[in-house]
Amino acid sequence: MLTLPQLKQQVLEANLDLPRHKLVTFTWGNVSAVDRERGLVVIKPSGVEYAQMTADDMVVVDLATGRTQEGSKKPSSDTATHLMLYREFTDIGGIVHTHSRHATIWAQAGLDIPAWGTTHADYFYGTIPCTRLMTADEIEQDYERETGRVIIETFHQRGLKPSAIPAVLVNAHGPFAWGKDAHDAVHNAVVLEEIAYMGIFSRQLTPGINSMQQVLLDKHYQRKHGKHAYYGQ
Amino acid sequence: MLTLPQLKQQVLEANLDLPRHKLVTFTWGNVSAVDRERGLVVIKPSGVEYAQMTADDMVVVDLATGRTQEGSKKPSSDTATHLMLYREFTDIGGIVHTHSRHATIWAQAGLDIPAWGTTHADYFYGTIPCTRLMTADEIEQDYERETGRVIIETFHQRGLKPSAIPAVLVNAHGPFAWGKDAHDAVHNAVVLEEIAYMGIFSRQLTPGINSMQQVLLDKHYQRKHGKHAYYGQ
Amino acid sequence: MLTLPQLKQQVLEANLDLPRHKLVTFTWGNVSAVDRERGLVVIKPSGVEYAQMTADDMVVVDLATGRTQEGSKKPSSDTATHLMLYREFTDIGGIVHTHSRHATIWAQAGLDIPAWGTTHADYFYGTIPCTRLMTADEIEQDYERETGRVIIETFHQRGLKPSAIPAVLVNAHGPFAWGKDAHDAVHNAVVLEEIAYMGIFSRQLTPGINSMQQVLLDKHYQRKHGKHAYYGQ
Amino acid sequence: MLTLPQLKQQVLEANLDLPRHKLVTFTWGNVSAVDRERGLVVIKPSGVEYAQMTADDMVVVDLATGRTQEGSKKPSSDTATHLMLYREFTDIGGIVHTHSRHATIWAQAGLDIPAWGTTHADYFYGTIPCTRLMTADEIEQDYERETGRVIIETFHQRGLKPSAIPAVLVNAHGPFAWGKDAHDAVHNAVVLEEIAYMGIFSRQLTPGINSMQQVLLDKHYQRKHGKHAYYGQ
Repeated sequence: MLTLPQLKQQVLEANLDLPRHKLVTFTWGNVSAVDRERGLVVIKPSGVEYAQMTADDMVVVDLATGRTQEGSKKPSSDTATHLMLYREFTDIGGIVHTHSRHATIWAQAGLDIPAWGTTHADYFYGTIPCTRLMTADEIEQDYERETGRVIIETFHQRGLKPSAIPAVLVNAHGPFAWGKDAHDAVHNAVVLEEIAYMGIFSRQLTPGINSMQQVLLDKHYQRKHGKHAYYGQ
Repeated sequence: MLTLPQLKQQVLEANLDLPRHKLVTFTWGNVSAVDRERGLVVIKPSGVEYAQMTADDMVVVDLATGRTQEGSKKPSSDTATHLMLYREFTDIGGIVHTHSRHATIWAQAGLDIPAWGTTHADYFYGTIPCTRLMTADEIEQDYERETGRVIIETFHQRGLKPSAIPAVLVNAHGPFAWGKDAHDAVHNAVVLEEIAYMGIFSRQLTPGINSMQQVLLDKHYQRKHGKHAYYGQ
Repeated sequence: MLTLPQLKQQVLEANLDLPRHKLVTFTWGNVSAVDRERGLVVIKPSGVEYAQMTADDMVVVDLATGRTQEGSKKPSSDTATHLMLYREFTDIGGIVHTHSRHATIWAQAGLDIPAWGTTHADYFYGTIPCTRLMTADEIEQDYERETGRVIIETFHQRGLKPSAIPAVLVNAHGPFAWGKDAHDAVHNAVVLEEIAYMGIFSRQLTPGINSMQQVLLDKHYQRKHGKHAYYGQ
Repeated sequence: MLTLPQLKQQVLEANLDLPRHKLVTFTWGNVSAVDRERGLVVIKPSGVEYAQMTADDMVVVDLATGRTQEGSKKPSSDTATHLMLYREFTDIGGIVHTHSRHATIWAQAGLDIPAWGTTHADYFYGTIPCTRLMTADEIEQDYERETGRVIIETFHQRGLKPSAIPAVLVNAHGPFAWGKDAHDAVHNAVVLEEIAYMGIFSRQLTPGINSMQQVLLDKHYQRKHGKHAYYGQ
């Protein structure tokens, strides 16, 4: 298990990976990680430039209450969404939110991203869902928390496992991705951006394009994530 | 308040940010700032390469008359447009004009950019307007000044506040963006380019796409720019 | 003829060219080369980061049996596909597999890339084929080997020469490209990506676009690859 | 007037600008310049990598006969096209040929690029033409020379001035651009690529998009290139 300083360092690095992978403009985007033993979440501070960020700037909040435990800065204003997801998706360790261009394009279009190829199948076991539009009440009352709730509702209603579909598109907003830790979450966010890009143009070339064969989806996902995984390019 | 040398330095830096953010090719594009106390505007010189530009190259012109007050170079030929906007939009401090690719694509298509997502709503409180085509008279007689006038007309006719919609598309031409100072203007120009890019493809995915919900637009704009702003990613 | 250490070095360099040409994300993609005298294939190890890879990491496998002859790492899980192609396409010396964005877009769309211009004709003597979908049996039983088989079937059924069409799109998956050695294979993969990009938008501009004239295809391919080749830009 | 060594240096630099502006892949593309006093053309050698190229590699050929006068390397195989254009377009000093992505997309689609905005009007005084397809005879007999001839035919038949429209798209092939010298030719090739990119998407947004108003085209072209030019951004 990582110490809290180690976890802060990891969350810092994962945040710095966002501009490196061209997933963010300015300070848009944030990464967090959870320490389930201690019941703590480490998250990027609000509005700090990536170039100036240090591990000590990372904010530690209580998983149950959301109260700040360590750090002199304000936690990202998306913290409440992260907390909702950690509480409900108990097998995830890191979360990332960005407005990465192509995933956001799908979110703005209000569309799911179907599995159209093995790049998708290597990481996501089926369609990546786009949430329903939020209601006026949800938006006006406890917006960031309700954003988490509508993601959870989407996974429940469709019977999806967060570990098998480690990303979601929030309608008219943008993507959240997650993983076993902060680095894995960013890794999945990069893949999401890649398949979001490719999907736009595959669909342009073949408008009525079907989802890939279930058997091919199974093969690629299982050879990488199944019990008998053997895959490495 | 900044001294004039400080303002020149700021305008220089804001101009140098244009190639850094990939908003310009060659010498295309220009940034200015206004000093309302002294009644002066500092603007990029005409046709100078970004790599060679110094703070002393920045040209100081009179806000009221447009006459050069300081500087051995000619002011940008778009100066008259900037002056018109500063005179009419009295709460703005900096202006940027570019031919950035995706904003220009919308300008060439003669279309407004509707608010389709929270990236837009975080900076622009509604649709970013595209001006009407200019008349032959306007083009032939005092073109750069009339360009400013048609922007102002667009904002008046649609009842828009320049502080809430800090950019416009000039039909068949390209974008102007503004802000509280030169840096803020460039910041808004970067965001404009980002949402212009995403909008092209969101619209391709969902051709009949509606503007986002008013309540979500309100929430995102207000949490960042309203009286009770609390937002920071 | 290269020594085995020299071949490993060449395969290493060809693999490192993949991120340099922006053909891969993370560790996606792999390059191999064959030594037909010794009956050996040198291929990238499985799951190793490009930044850390050395010539000694390259794995040497037996062309006939697929058994590892040298190297402490596991060979790429796509090795069986490479071996099938080397056995059947006896005049090729290097193979590359990537999920490069635009070639993969066509593969996901299940479409061939027709010859629409001289950039294509300079390297590919006609349409670049997309394979049929694989059957459930092929996917479930010996997937990587069957992937090679379906590529070979595609070339046989269409009467294509691998030396004249040095690439293929595997349906719902991505491209394989090859050449006289590992570097030539990567070179062809770069060209494939370039024409895949351009084809998407040429087809958007002119939806019913025909293949280029056969006589122009002949001219460009032959002036570069024919007996009387004289071409160099 | 430049000495021949100076001209070689200029042609070298202009060639090196091609990868710098991302107009070429590998060795694709070539730039030349003419010395009309001496009746000589300086052009890039055939198939030499940009990274290794020196001024001494530039090949000097006779404008009238095409025979090599200086240089140990073969001149670019596109030399005959350059010579035809220099002989007919007597007011141009430099020529560039590339397969730059977006201009080539239009060439492959067999379409002219209409003037849709002031970026276009600042450099090109109207539609950039795409040539007709070449006949089998033209392709088979003296291909590179006939490529020049069909460009010239296009300008004659449409009554275009090469100085006012400094580029052309060769159907199913790619762009040629020119200018008063080698640097100016490359400058125009960069602008062509920029407007080719923007045009694809402006046309997607507004399919029936008209050419820009003639009066606006006049204004922008003349304020930059006319007798009373005053323009500089």
